[in-house]
Amino acid sequence: MQGKRAVVLLSGGMDSAVALAEARAAGFTCHALSLDYGQRHAAELAAARRVAAAIGAAEHRIVALDLRAFGGSALTSDLPVPESPTTGIPITYVPARNTVLLALALAWAETLGAEDIFIGVNAIDYSGYPDCRPEFIAAFEHLARLATKAGVEGTPFRIHTPLIALSKAEIVRRGLALGVDFALTVSCYQADAEGLACGRCDACRLRAKGFAEAGVPDPTRYRGDPPRLS
Amino acid sequence: MQGKRAVVLLSGGMDSAVALAEARAAGFTCHALSLDYGQRHAAELAAARRVAAAIGAAEHRIVALDLRAFGGSALTSDLPVPESPTTGIPITYVPARNTVLLALALAWAETLGAEDIFIGVNAIDYSGYPDCRPEFIAAFEHLARLATKAGVEGTPFRIHTPLIALSKAEIVRRGLALGVDFALTVSCYQADAEGLACGRCDACRLRAKGFAEAGVPDPTRYRGDPPRLS
Repeated sequence: MQGKRAVVLLSGGMDSAVALAEARAAGFTCHALSLDYGQRHAAELAAARRVAAAIGAAEHRIVALDLRAFGGSALTSDLPVPESPTTGIPITYVPARNTVLLALALAWAETLGAEDIFIGVNAIDYSGYPDCRPEFIAAFEHLARLATKAGVEGTPFRIHTPLIALSKAEIVRRGLALGVDFALTVSCYQADAEGLACGRCDACRLRAKGFAEAGVPDPTRYRGDPPRLS
Repeated sequence: MQGKRAVVLLSGGMDSAVALAEARAAGFTCHALSLDYGQRHAAELAAARRVAAAIGAAEHRIVALDLRAFGGSALTSDLPVPESPTTGIPITYVPARNTVLLALALAWAETLGAEDIFIGVNAIDYSGYPDCRPEFIAAFEHLARLATKAGVEGTPFRIHTPLIALSKAEIVRRGLALGVDFALTVSCYQADAEGLACGRCDACRLRAKGFAEAGVPDPTRYRGDPPRLS
C-alpha cells in the first residue's frame, strides 16, 4: 500500500535532497517539484532529476517560471555572485522565492489531494534569507488553510521543515544516515554545465563547512580548489 | 513628479480593470502584471494589454507559468466549463491561484521597491472562491512582511482590494465613474479568439447581472445570445 502523498520541493542542492529523504523515511509517496526560474545554476535542475530518481520520488515535475522578468538577484540576473563572505541579506537572495515555491507546491498539493509539503529550508546556516525562518513557514501554513478549497473544507495543510533547526554538519550526518548520496547534489550558485562547483560562493563555503564539521569527506566535484575554510 | 509605485494584477476582466483604475486614481505609477497560466481564455490576455494601455499603466508584463502541469480546474485543463448555475466552490476554481498571483506580485514589488499591490478580488459576487475573502488577503499581507528582505527591513507591504466589498453593480458604477471602458475587457471563461463571450458561463452571468443591476447597457460582445437573467 502506498503512503500518503506529499509534495517535496527539490532544488538539486543538499538540503532539499535530505528533505526528500526525510519525507520518504516518514512513509510519504513523494511528488517532487522543481522550479526552473531562469537560474544561473541550471546544473541544479539536472542534479534534482538524479536526486529524485535516487531517493525514490514517485514523480518529478519541473515547472518553468522565468523570474528573470523581475530581475533583482544575482541568481536570476546579471549581477555577479560574491566570492567572499558578505554581511546582511546577500545579493543572491531571490525576491519572494520561497513564497513563490510554496504557492506552487500548494497548488499541486491541492490538485493531488495531498496535505503535506516538504521544504528544505534552514534557519541556522541559512545565508540570511528571511523566507527560511520559522515565522515565515508558520505564516504560510496559516495562509494555505485560508487560500484553498481543500483548506476551507478542512484539510490541515502542513509545511514540513525537517532541516530548519539543524546545522549544516547535522544535515550532512542526517543525510548520510538516510542514505543520501551527496555526490549527486549541486549547491553551488555558479556551477558549470557539468555541475562542477566554483568553491568560492556562499553556498560552496557553507556546504564545505558542513562536511568538515561533520568529519566526513566532501564528495563535491570542484572545478578548481575546494573552499578554504577559516 | 511620479507617484509611488504599485504592482497591479491584471487579468483582462472587468474587476481587475477597475482595480487598475483605482490605483491610478490614487496616484500610483502602475506596473501591471498578468499571468499566462495556460488558461483557456487567452483572449483575456489580449484584453489585459488593451486595458493596461487605455488606463495608463506605466508598463505591463506577462509572466508565463503553465499551471496546466498540475491540472485540476476547468480553466486550465480539459474539464468542461459549467453553463448553468452550480452550488459550492465551482470547477472553474484554479488551485491556489491568488496565492500564486500575489507571490509573483510580491516578487516584482520587492524588486521595484514598491510597497503596494492591487488585486481586484471581490468577496460579494465572487463565485465562491476561497482566495477572494478578506481573511485570505490579511493572511497574505502578514506573510509578505515576513517573506521578504524589504519586509524584514521595515517595508509595510499593503495588499489593496478596492473591490472586495462591492457588488458587481457597484463595480460597474465605480468603473464608469473612473472612465473604464468595459468594452475592452473580457470576463468570459470560454471567450473565443476574438474575445466574444459565450453568454452562458458563471463569469458571463455575473457580469451581465452587474450591468443590469447598475442600470447601464452591457457593452459585452457575445457570440450568441446574451445571458438570460432570472
